[in-house]
Amino acid sequence: MRGLMQSSSINLVSLLEHASRWHGNQEVVSNTVEGGMHRQTYRETWQRTAQLGNALAELGVKKGDRIGTMAWNTYRHLESWFAIMGRGAVAHTLNPRLFPEQLIYIVNHAEDQIILVDLTFVPLIQALADKLPTLKHVIVMTGPEHMPDDLPDNWHCYESLLEGRAQSCEWEQVDGDDASSLCYTSGTTGNPKGVLYSHISNVLHAYGATSKDAMNVGSADRVMMVVPMFHANSWGLAFGLPMVGARMVMPGPHMDGASMAAMLNDERCNFAAAVPTVWSMLLDHLRSTGGSLPDLKEVVIGGSAAPRSMIEAFDKEFDVAVLHAWGMTEMSPLGTVNRVSGSMPLPAGPDEAYDLSCKQGRVPFGVDMEIVDDDHNTLPHDGQTFGRLLVRGPWIVERYYGETESALDENGWFDTGDIATIDEYGFMNITDRAKDVIKSGGEWISSADLENAAIAHPDVALAACIGATHPKWDERPVLLVQMAEGKNLDAGSILTLLAEQFARWQLPDAILPVDSIPLTATGKIDKKPLRAEYQNYLLDNPS
Amino acid sequence: MRGLMQSSSINLVSLLEHASRWHGNQEVVSNTVEGGMHRQTYRETWQRTAQLGNALAELGVKKGDRIGTMAWNTYRHLESWFAIMGRGAVAHTLNPRLFPEQLIYIVNHAEDQIILVDLTFVPLIQALADKLPTLKHVIVMTGPEHMPDDLPDNWHCYESLLEGRAQSCEWEQVDGDDASSLCYTSGTTGNPKGVLYSHISNVLHAYGATSKDAMNVGSADRVMMVVPMFHANSWGLAFGLPMVGARMVMPGPHMDGASMAAMLNDERCNFAAAVPTVWSMLLDHLRSTGGSLPDLKEVVIGGSAAPRSMIEAFDKEFDVAVLHAWGMTEMSPLGTVNRVSGSMPLPAGPDEAYDLSCKQGRVPFGVDMEIVDDDHNTLPHDGQTFGRLLVRGPWIVERYYGETESALDENGWFDTGDIATIDEYGFMNITDRAKDVIKSGGEWISSADLENAAIAHPDVALAACIGATHPKWDERPVLLVQMAEGKNLDAGSILTLLAEQFARWQLPDAILPVDSIPLTATGKIDKKPLRAEYQNYLLDNPS
Repeated sequence: MRGLMQSSSINLVSLLEHASRWHGNQEVVSNTVEGGMHRQTYRETWQRTAQLGNALAELGVKKGDRIGTMAWNTYRHLESWFAIMGRGAVAHTLNPRLFPEQLIYIVNHAEDQIILVDLTFVPLIQALADKLPTLKHVIVMTGPEHMPDDLPDNWHCYESLLEGRAQSCEWEQVDGDDASSLCYTSGTTGNPKGVLYSHISNVLHAYGATSKDAMNVGSADRVMMVVPMFHANSWGLAFGLPMVGARMVMPGPHMDGASMAAMLNDERCNFAAAVPTVWSMLLDHLRSTGGSLPDLKEVVIGGSAAPRSMIEAFDKEFDVAVLHAWGMTEMSPLGTVNRVSGSMPLPAGPDEAYDLSCKQGRVPFGVDMEIVDDDHNTLPHDGQTFGRLLVRGPWIVERYYGETESALDENGWFDTGDIATIDEYGFMNITDRAKDVIKSGGEWISSADLENAAIAHPDVALAACIGATHPKWDERPVLLVQMAEGKNLDAGSILTLLAEQFARWQLPDAILPVDSIPLTATGKIDKKPLRAEYQNYLLDNPS
Repeated sequence: MRGLMQSSSINLVSLLEHASRWHGNQEVVSNTVEGGMHRQTYRETWQRTAQLGNALAELGVKKGDRIGTMAWNTYRHLESWFAIMGRGAVAHTLNPRLFPEQLIYIVNHAEDQIILVDLTFVPLIQALADKLPTLKHVIVMTGPEHMPDDLPDNWHCYESLLEGRAQSCEWEQVDGDDASSLCYTSGTTGNPKGVLYSHISNVLHAYGATSKDAMNVGSADRVMMVVPMFHANSWGLAFGLPMVGARMVMPGPHMDGASMAAMLNDERCNFAAAVPTVWSMLLDHLRSTGGSLPDLKEVVIGGSAAPRSMIEAFDKEFDVAVLHAWGMTEMSPLGTVNRVSGSMPLPAGPDEAYDLSCKQGRVPFGVDMEIVDDDHNTLPHDGQTFGRLLVRGPWIVERYYGETESALDENGWFDTGDIATIDEYGFMNITDRAKDVIKSGGEWISSADLENAAIAHPDVALAACIGATHPKWDERPVLLVQMAEGKNLDAGSILTLLAEQFARWQLPDAILPVDSIPLTATGKIDKKPLRAEYQNYLLDNPS
């Protein structure tokens, strides 16, 4: 027996329509690619989105077509998403930080028909264009006064396309399960894999992400959406903020400390979301200029783990609370947010509170998680035992785009590839990537914990820990360190520091200097070349 | 092209599973039918729900079966909902305040197989049972020590059914569009009509109802859920509170002022939801005993309009903010909640704030609304113009249970039967029921506005205004008043009071005393008999 409600009326374009109808005067503020601030309301955003929707129809966009975007967070990128999805097409975000070969693979795998591109990335798309056989049109997201010369005929000016068109649009009929958007993950091995979101999965995600124990945003909030729409969907804020009618503030390409501080204060943002590197730049800028953040109350930090020193700095120096969050492209992306739960004792003091803040947090309804050992046995939620982190729920991937096989195990769980603990109040703490955890004589040692402890040493710039093959213990930790400018390795002092936090059997068997720790295209430590070089170090250099 | 996410994993039983897994120690507190407070955790609630789910399977409950409940808000009613829906069956709430003929019609129309009933209503179901041919079993929601004697063999004791059963259950596979629950509306004309909710419509509704601009509840909130589960689904709180892990406090049958005050204060509730009559009893009790509400911060008032005097009393006397809300069974039920919007100027002072609070409020994402005239033309959102209030969205009815025709107009709108204004910030204000609005010479006069103004007169107990037939103006207002105990009608002083708020052409042509204003089964004014008596009053008594 089926319910008799209007459930099929759910679709993503209605989020922006809602913002236009019920929060029509609310502002969408963008720092532009061309320079200068741009302000428009949700109502104007909706009208311009309709104009773009009409233009896309004329360019032949049909339901289910994949349409790429390579752009910073601005009003035009926002309009593009909603216009593409409103046409029933699939908005495919391209991450400009990927290697050209990965981009070519991704665009061709998705068979993108059109790419909307910011001025910044015009040279990049120009260089790739003749390797993209499905690409019919490129739309440059700028006005005619900024259009580069000598572009081919199938390159269009965004503002010229909108000019004079109707400000309402007959949107395509979609139902909740229709595909809305596509984002590829860039793993360190194999080809990128596409996650194909649906209208309903994104709507549910937006509700969960904005809920009180997660980001807790409403129409009175002024939110700086720093995390890029091309990187894990701006953590759902591009949908969540119109959903609740919050003021949207977007940095465009300007994510340096000075620009961030100016926007946060000029727009009186009380909430913001970004990755740790952006926040580092902001903190550095504020300290060097003696700046403050009078309106900012909370920041969400995700993408990679927020160092405890950053959490403390925000609180002690700027009176801003840090909400640690965790997710992944396969999870739309939100998995957990760290807010104190109502059914737990409050932390006894600031130190306990900071300890708690370092964990990745709790799940909203819509995400379930579990930790298991290598034999798939469920492990206790005691905050100590760590295991492979599994997730499931309506906004988590079922299978990758173009694949016929499910990405899930037989119980419907998706393996995140992370190793984590969960405590009795539901706080999850990632201790390592599964491929990085060191399996020493049947016990697991977290490579990430050792790395984090090592970089607290003032002379260490970066650290990477691998499990080197050991004749007796299978694997033992070897710590590779990139020293700070002008510093030399003193392994003894690093070991002394580590011994304060780790049991003797968890300490590395060797600490070795390297000139530079290799990084992936998205700025994460790439352990592959290090493993190639140091895997047999302990066999070759027995102690 | 379909999205490739796990969207089909949405179902309602997972709400309680989520609460059990992630807010397992959070309490569910009930004032019981038998007497005394009962406390259990979400984890225990989930285990008991599984036991009931196993019992229902043994009683032969199959996917799609309709299972009735006639019960107060207690842990057993909560368990019953989730167990029924977890079995893939349809939880059909029966309102004990309906007339027996309506109940017989409803149970037979729904073809309920089982009814779970509180001790309070055992005599009622006993009296009806032989007119309910589909009814196979009755489950009395109590322990063996309280079971009435001499019940037939197919009447079971709830606690005895649970006893010794497994605390986990193989729940039925459902998808989002499967029916979950059923509630009949009790109009004043025609047979009651059933609204058949789905798993997805209720999940979306729970997200919307708990969102920051709506009820704004999270795991740290302690919520008194007074509004009955049998009356418009407890405004979604039976789903919303487990969704966010809030403490649930339920009054059972004890909704008198003294019991309410004790529970609110003993359980340190900061939030509560109830209809105006319950709040009246609470305010009376607190005033007569000199009581206070130290923990309560916000109350949601809906079901019928909250008088301004009540909104002021909560604020001035008890420092509690009133959130006016509006909805209907056909809307799951939540339509609007009155919270100041972030994109509007704040009210200039307390009087403006109270004026604003008297409106029914704004829509969360998931509800769209419009006002139209009799020719379906859209009317301006200026806070002045009133028209028929239309709604649409994923948790709004598409068609009634058993009907083949849509309940919507050709644009997908559902006509609420209310007359309302909408202001430029989206605040909706109901001015009348469509059938009650008085059409005088082409202009509309709100009967409800006249009634509300009249009951502000100290001598008036109740007032009902009808549109009496008039030879020149088609209809003119006639105000019927039930005087307070021992008071006699002074029409002049009422007219003087009304003249402060209404234009001359809006004032009633006659003010007449009646012994008692007739009420419907659910306590609303029933104008049908009044119209029968007074429709021709102005023709028979020309002025």
